[in-house]
Amino acid sequence: MSGFRHVVMFRWAEGTTTGQQEEVAARLGELPGLIEEIREYSIGVNAGVNPGAYDFAVVADFAGRDAYLAYRDHPAHRAVVEQYITPIVAERASIQYEA
Amino acid sequence: MSGFRHVVMFRWAEGTTTGQQEEVAARLGELPGLIEEIREYSIGVNAGVNPGAYDFAVVADFAGRDAYLAYRDHPAHRAVVEQYITPIVAERASIQYEA
Repeated sequence: MSGFRHVVMFRWAEGTTTGQQEEVAARLGELPGLIEEIREYSIGVNAGVNPGAYDFAVVADFAGRDAYLAYRDHPAHRAVVEQYITPIVAERASIQYEA
Repeated sequence: MSGFRHVVMFRWAEGTTTGQQEEVAARLGELPGLIEEIREYSIGVNAGVNPGAYDFAVVADFAGRDAYLAYRDHPAHRAVVEQYITPIVAERASIQYEA
């Protein structure tokens, strides 16, 4: 199925608590119920297989670029980013591609 | 469907040619035909939507951790990494998670 994929990984700052990390996952997990443009939404915590891996990832699928932009800029998403993610992020890596 | 997901992004070194980048995509694209543990394999080139995005991504799905490890260490995969990816990588970000 053709579409548009957004992938992002975060490395949390030192001193971040498990509770803060779980809050991010919980809040992001609500977004598919709030943002209709989300087609598939996968979130995951590093399994600890490889040294140097990031801590947390989101892989989100959309019908196309415009649907992704609607998600990116949606107030419910921005609120999670600003209130729960930005305060604990040390490093962020992302890409968007036609999938 | 439960499984194990591997996500990796690369930023290519300055001076890397489009041909070198396309060669990476082509060689990786052969792996699902060579490594039976790969369940799904998605590769993508940055769509240019957001500043600071990485250049190239792979999202690969496996039945579980052991299947991922078989892929990670498979000679056909290692050959692509060593011959085509490592020589042009500036930055790499990765994570593996239970999906």
